[in-house]
Amino acid sequence: MTLKFSSKHRVEFYDVDSMNVMWHGNYVKIIESARCEFLKNIDYDYTQMKEDGFVFPVVKMHFKYILPVFFGDIIDVETSLKDCDIFLAFEYKLFCRDKKIAQASTHQVAISIKDMQTQLSMPTRLLEAIKRKRK
Amino acid sequence: MTLKFSSKHRVEFYDVDSMNVMWHGNYVKIIESARCEFLKNIDYDYTQMKEDGFVFPVVKMHFKYILPVFFGDIIDVETSLKDCDIFLAFEYKLFCRDKKIAQASTHQVAISIKDMQTQLSMPTRLLEAIKRKRK
Amino acid sequence: MTLKFSSKHRVEFYDVDSMNVMWHGNYVKIIESARCEFLKNIDYDYTQMKEDGFVFPVVKMHFKYILPVFFGDIIDVETSLKDCDIFLAFEYKLFCRDKKIAQASTHQVAISIKDMQTQLSMPTRLLEAIKRKRK
Amino acid sequence: MTLKFSSKHRVEFYDVDSMNVMWHGNYVKIIESARCEFLKNIDYDYTQMKEDGFVFPVVKMHFKYILPVFFGDIIDVETSLKDCDIFLAFEYKLFCRDKKIAQASTHQVAISIKDMQTQLSMPTRLLEAIKRKRK
Repeated sequence: MTLKFSSKHRVEFYDVDSMNVMWHGNYVKIIESARCEFLKNIDYDYTQMKEDGFVFPVVKMHFKYILPVFFGDIIDVETSLKDCDIFLAFEYKLFCRDKKIAQASTHQVAISIKDMQTQLSMPTRLLEAIKRKRK
Repeated sequence: MTLKFSSKHRVEFYDVDSMNVMWHGNYVKIIESARCEFLKNIDYDYTQMKEDGFVFPVVKMHFKYILPVFFGDIIDVETSLKDCDIFLAFEYKLFCRDKKIAQASTHQVAISIKDMQTQLSMPTRLLEAIKRKRK
Repeated sequence: MTLKFSSKHRVEFYDVDSMNVMWHGNYVKIIESARCEFLKNIDYDYTQMKEDGFVFPVVKMHFKYILPVFFGDIIDVETSLKDCDIFLAFEYKLFCRDKKIAQASTHQVAISIKDMQTQLSMPTRLLEAIKRKRK
Repeated sequence: MTLKFSSKHRVEFYDVDSMNVMWHGNYVKIIESARCEFLKNIDYDYTQMKEDGFVFPVVKMHFKYILPVFFGDIIDVETSLKDCDIFLAFEYKLFCRDKKIAQASTHQVAISIKDMQTQLSMPTRLLEAIKRKRK
């Protein structure tokens, strides 16, 4: 079962570039915010990850831009967990005014803060948080 | 022959996140700046594109992050033009302290400002600028 | 009577710097977002301003930072209109966990888009929108 | 004697807003970058500050915007140290095409990382670095 979470994000004046559309780089902020809300929803956010001794840097990121969005637009992001084996892999579908406007994906690895070693599996507490939510 | 251009970019204090490394979203700024320098180098920048009636939105963007970079680091970006048929496709290799730290690619389409139609080929003046440089 | 409007803003992961606190420059985004919500609330936002032929660049901006804020914090911004004669002047009080964490002010002028001339008074439609709300 | 340092900063595409001018909030990045270059020039940068056990949060920040700047513009920032008693106070004059386009000021305090106490004077090593340069 794929875990999903939806969140809303507003396009601010400072997000918009000289073409009057949201600058493509600012979508990275939107999906990061969506990912943080996903993790908060499964009760395992970045703060707890850090307390458990792990950081989760993004190692791959893909974007496909379909339609532009404008100042004041509300973007709905549907965040899905696609994998939590070696990578923590998320997929994002972005909608605005009932149309798909972009999609994205990220891959993160777990790194132990103590020795800065990349882990070959996800921390137990994260896997438990995911399992709890899947029930 | 692949057109290439190298440019340097400094990691600023405001680029760095709470993990003390450059935030992954800020690489989008670095490669945009590198792409602008590439285009300036072939004497056909965004300002001229706009005067010619075209904008070039990014429709696809990929990143692979290999090693972290830190406040004060200088990043060397090697920007290569991979395609200028339907898409304007660039590839970016990022180096720091003689190591490859990331790679990225972008695809842009040409849109006519007059009617907001996506073009099926690149504007003539851009192709001429590329040809001139290739000689 | 001073017009006031309150809005909430979350500190995102990408807002935080290597000292683990929201980077001081990101407060500019928070107060701009708060100002936009204030203007939407009086039914006269940037989009309408532009349709009426005016832009409102910020010409002065002051910040006083009192207490740091952290990833995940919710900031309450109380935005007050202080003047709408020659300048559109706003004051912002920022609170978090019941404590005042910062204050700020901005001054904007109205510029006519047609001739790029700075106006010596605020556009009539803005003044009317303010008057309507004050009743 | 007032210590001064000049540095150059380019207005990037991503710095520009929908009015086609550099967004007012991005000037904060420019003066931070200028301040970092000033400190590097006196051989006492943020990294050394942190090693010495201090951080220097900005507690006050003022901006006055005089003329707009555009994509591709080069801004010259003249950074002056105005005070290093209780506050580390800097003043910034920004020029473009031989015209003054903005000015700004920042006040920073020294905070000891160990106990997070605000210091009533600047760390000795910073004062020595300043004295060395003044000679």
